[in-house]
Amino acid sequence: MEKPLNAAQKLIQSHLLEGSMTPGKEIGLKIDQALLQDATGTMVQLELEAMGLKKAKTEVAVQYVDHNLLQTDFKNADDHLFLQTAAARFGMWFSRPGNGVSHPVHMERFGIPGKSLLGSDSHTPAAGSLGMLAIGTGGLDVAAAIAGEPYYVKMPEIMGVKLTGRLPDWVSAKDIILEMLRRYDVKGGVGKIIEYYGDGLKQLSAMDRHVIANMGAELGATTTVFPSDEITREFLRSQKREDDWVELKADEGAEYDHHAEIVLDELVPLIATPSSPGNVVPVSEVSGKEISQVVIGSSANPGLRDFWIAGAIVSGKTVDSEVSFDVNPTSRQIIQNMIKNRAFANLIQAGARFHQSGCMGCIGMGQAPASGTISLRTMPRNFPDRSGTKDDQVYLCSPETAAASALTGKITDPRELESLFDMSYPKYEAPEEIIINTEMLVAPPDSGKEISLKKGPNIQSLPEFEKLLDEYDLPVILKMGDNISTDEILKAGAEVLPYRSNIPEISKYAFIVVDEGYHEKALQAKNSKGGHVVVAGENYAQGSSREHAAIAPRYLGQVAVLAKSYARIAWQNMVNFGILPLHFKDHADYERIPEGANIILSDMRKQVQEQNEITVKVETEDQSFTIQTKHQLSPRQREMILNGGYINTFKKEKV
Amino acid sequence: MEKPLNAAQKLIQSHLLEGSMTPGKEIGLKIDQALLQDATGTMVQLELEAMGLKKAKTEVAVQYVDHNLLQTDFKNADDHLFLQTAAARFGMWFSRPGNGVSHPVHMERFGIPGKSLLGSDSHTPAAGSLGMLAIGTGGLDVAAAIAGEPYYVKMPEIMGVKLTGRLPDWVSAKDIILEMLRRYDVKGGVGKIIEYYGDGLKQLSAMDRHVIANMGAELGATTTVFPSDEITREFLRSQKREDDWVELKADEGAEYDHHAEIVLDELVPLIATPSSPGNVVPVSEVSGKEISQVVIGSSANPGLRDFWIAGAIVSGKTVDSEVSFDVNPTSRQIIQNMIKNRAFANLIQAGARFHQSGCMGCIGMGQAPASGTISLRTMPRNFPDRSGTKDDQVYLCSPETAAASALTGKITDPRELESLFDMSYPKYEAPEEIIINTEMLVAPPDSGKEISLKKGPNIQSLPEFEKLLDEYDLPVILKMGDNISTDEILKAGAEVLPYRSNIPEISKYAFIVVDEGYHEKALQAKNSKGGHVVVAGENYAQGSSREHAAIAPRYLGQVAVLAKSYARIAWQNMVNFGILPLHFKDHADYERIPEGANIILSDMRKQVQEQNEITVKVETEDQSFTIQTKHQLSPRQREMILNGGYINTFKKEKV
Repeated sequence: MEKPLNAAQKLIQSHLLEGSMTPGKEIGLKIDQALLQDATGTMVQLELEAMGLKKAKTEVAVQYVDHNLLQTDFKNADDHLFLQTAAARFGMWFSRPGNGVSHPVHMERFGIPGKSLLGSDSHTPAAGSLGMLAIGTGGLDVAAAIAGEPYYVKMPEIMGVKLTGRLPDWVSAKDIILEMLRRYDVKGGVGKIIEYYGDGLKQLSAMDRHVIANMGAELGATTTVFPSDEITREFLRSQKREDDWVELKADEGAEYDHHAEIVLDELVPLIATPSSPGNVVPVSEVSGKEISQVVIGSSANPGLRDFWIAGAIVSGKTVDSEVSFDVNPTSRQIIQNMIKNRAFANLIQAGARFHQSGCMGCIGMGQAPASGTISLRTMPRNFPDRSGTKDDQVYLCSPETAAASALTGKITDPRELESLFDMSYPKYEAPEEIIINTEMLVAPPDSGKEISLKKGPNIQSLPEFEKLLDEYDLPVILKMGDNISTDEILKAGAEVLPYRSNIPEISKYAFIVVDEGYHEKALQAKNSKGGHVVVAGENYAQGSSREHAAIAPRYLGQVAVLAKSYARIAWQNMVNFGILPLHFKDHADYERIPEGANIILSDMRKQVQEQNEITVKVETEDQSFTIQTKHQLSPRQREMILNGGYINTFKKEKV
Repeated sequence: MEKPLNAAQKLIQSHLLEGSMTPGKEIGLKIDQALLQDATGTMVQLELEAMGLKKAKTEVAVQYVDHNLLQTDFKNADDHLFLQTAAARFGMWFSRPGNGVSHPVHMERFGIPGKSLLGSDSHTPAAGSLGMLAIGTGGLDVAAAIAGEPYYVKMPEIMGVKLTGRLPDWVSAKDIILEMLRRYDVKGGVGKIIEYYGDGLKQLSAMDRHVIANMGAELGATTTVFPSDEITREFLRSQKREDDWVELKADEGAEYDHHAEIVLDELVPLIATPSSPGNVVPVSEVSGKEISQVVIGSSANPGLRDFWIAGAIVSGKTVDSEVSFDVNPTSRQIIQNMIKNRAFANLIQAGARFHQSGCMGCIGMGQAPASGTISLRTMPRNFPDRSGTKDDQVYLCSPETAAASALTGKITDPRELESLFDMSYPKYEAPEEIIINTEMLVAPPDSGKEISLKKGPNIQSLPEFEKLLDEYDLPVILKMGDNISTDEILKAGAEVLPYRSNIPEISKYAFIVVDEGYHEKALQAKNSKGGHVVVAGENYAQGSSREHAAIAPRYLGQVAVLAKSYARIAWQNMVNFGILPLHFKDHADYERIPEGANIILSDMRKQVQEQNEITVKVETEDQSFTIQTKHQLSPRQREMILNGGYINTFKKEKV
């Protein structure tokens, strides 16, 4: 008899193309579905253009527009038109601006238990609520998956979380994931898949599970998996897609690498205090603090129930006169159903400010709170300044806690509503039938090859990168210390973000935080010497996974980096875009290379192909010497470096 | 028997405090109500603070928040909190962010036939739809009116526009005002009040009249007046304020200074082409052009009917897949009524993107269209770049034309819907009862004196300005040519606008367009010599009425301007803030004063008080001479200049 498997292992096994299910070892997974949002999607579409993709090879690929909706100048609207033409050209669905937040819309319209989903958004794991294997990653990984390539990831450990008992009144799904964050904090899920099971699941609707799977990202988990059961089936039936249901559950006697149990009856309303989703305490510990804003919505509380309960709590009352009560409806479909079940009217009557469907304040697109005041949000993240206000004080909580606090103007444990307003916990009854709205989902055409990409002036095709040469004589134009972050390599923020679809423009900001002269020096070296090298210490390029931190230096002629060590994702990005990341074999050599030195590389194609070590000649003002470096490239990655990056490799092999 | 009066004359006569009703002569009007919006209101509130106002003396004053709603950083939200405390402190109503657009909300909740209204927004005349005398003007004028002072304006001429017949199907109020703009263009109303009368009025609801009165601003009119009749009464009844109704109509045999007649039956759907509201042509002349965006809403089409008709047209259909169909609901009250009459569901189902209630794209707060594409809007203005997109192509039209075009993806004459969709013109029936929503209107407290103003870091009290001295020896730090605009004195745009409530900060941008060194030189002159002078040619400070173009230079020590001539509003603003605007008596003297010269002013208090001419001594590098200048100050204004501006005068006399 075969070894019994848990649900996560079943999902992986059924998609395993390379490797074995040994935690920590690289595996290659077949990807069935792809999810793109607009903030990362413009670059993915440009990558697909550069790769010469004819048609998406995943079963389903969907381009959503939910991030950049404010349109304060032409750039957002131009991006929307570009993405619409690109989606049609490459055979993807297009979810039009304002149709809704990607994760819940994807779950409602496209989610299928047992399938795999790769998305260029960190909350992609939300689809694990349906029993999918749903992983968020960088743009080029998703582009590769759309082109039919496997997704490579280290086999995670599986953590089984048993849910038992019943949630008390005024406590809901958000409090379960906040309890997980209270226990395990923001790194507790790193290298793990979180799998929920147990009798407690019976009380959780598919959208409740979405809340938990979505914010599994805040635990640092690779993904979260729920079984696909009768509740999943009921959800798909309500979405008129019952045929897509298949069962998925752990085998009898399946084992987990880690164990946890949550007794639901013991939970109380919880809240994440500023400025980390892991700073979780009971609401009662911080109640009474004055607030200026309450925001409900986002992919972390997207369900009809979540809006209904908030509406039921404020029904017939008026929110505090000094609280801005902002409501971000998840999707146009949700709005229609909120109208039908009176949630919309209840919220409006009580004083809600309704916004268009989308991520909005969750990713700092508007809704910034007033200086130094408290904002309560049902959103997944409260990192400093994410709201757009530098000294923000953002707390994360359930819709129940948010609505109770909106009424009182202070952080309020929703259980207090019983005495404050003589209210009993409103019992949600899901409607027999929900309204389905697909008007703003544009299906891919049969053939997209005639469709030309609409590119506004800020959308520039991905530059072509040349293959690795044999001989180089390159200046070291920048020498850095330890722990340089991708924010220092290519900063974020309102000034730079709009140029993500414009490599020539965004490259002007490369390394500007550490050396304002970098851009100029790099262009000079590119013209006179064919490129440049930078030198760094330990943990180079830590932090955000943005691939522009590799693309922009590469565009400016960066051939290689010499560092003591690299952060994992950035190292992968460099390789993907053809920058050779070399490690000092002897860390003491770091000290011997000054800024301005020349690096002589010889017989490079052979060295990269055949050796793990690369000999580097260094010429300084007063001496010349040789050092040994190494790389850690797999055979697949050696090929990429030789070809000048993944895209050239893809074009060479597949097109 | 007295001379018969038209409605406009009756309104003026009943508010006349100073002067006589002779066109072109200055009159002083009693102001009953004041309207502030947030973009101009922060400065008005700071002025009231500087004036030491205890309590608003108008019968009603309302601070609306409808412009700056995006909150991309702390500044908007800080402004909202500031405005809320200021409204309470000074005894005003506060219409909370997202409650709705000022003009329709004011009409619904506060408008009273026969009363006068002064607003710090150019579309304030919209309240003329109810038979009010409603005028838009600069901030300090409104501050003065709130403090109980008369409003001074030149007596306008009255243009009587007779409406006869009935509107054809598919033609509505917007087409009437577009016809006026087609005939008279954007300066046709300058110095005039437009008064509508005639049998055709019977077909126009109060909100239809609002459409026409609102866009009277685009004719350049001082204001627009409709009679108050049974339709006005019905409107007030529907708003549960029938007791506020009084009749207002022109006397039998009343005369007008100008005459016009519109035969409604002859009207066709009209459209204003880029980039002026005066570029009006029949829709049929431009039909077939591809569009990327349709926006309905704004104070120029705010009524329930306007949304209903758009909803009825798109009902059961889906908007073109390449058109963003944006809906800006006027107010929270309108949303509730749109839900009730199914307009909301019809629009959503067809693909509308609903936004929060407010001005939104109408004042370039988001909704910028894609580069070089056509946007159709029911808004009042299509000036170049107002949308936020530099090469925008904005057309202005009725909700009927907008909805028809959203369906086809091309500019479409709504009459074509009969053949395209086998549709007859939907007949609107106003609901028997409408829902009234006042939850987000905060009444003023009985006493506001205990309330302290909440000022975020970007909100700085208005600086105090010193009175006129007797002796000055000031450098000319800037010499300019003719037609310098207020955009050159203090530019607008996203970088500068957020500093409107922060004079020290915004002063860094003063004259930056003409001389980047101005700020530095002005500070130096202020420290070493006590101030400075600038020299200009003809028509100095033309353009926008922004008072910051006077306040910022004054803050930096500008004592006087020497110019050949001045634009009217800016001249008034300078006087209000204590800058002495001097005219060259001999224009040839302009040539004799180089940048860097010294201006010696002597015995100034006596000269300003007693003389129309001011003797000015000029010292250049190689000579010294005397020139004659004059001012055109009224006795009231001489007093202001002596005191250092209106605010000091007010404090001296009234507090």
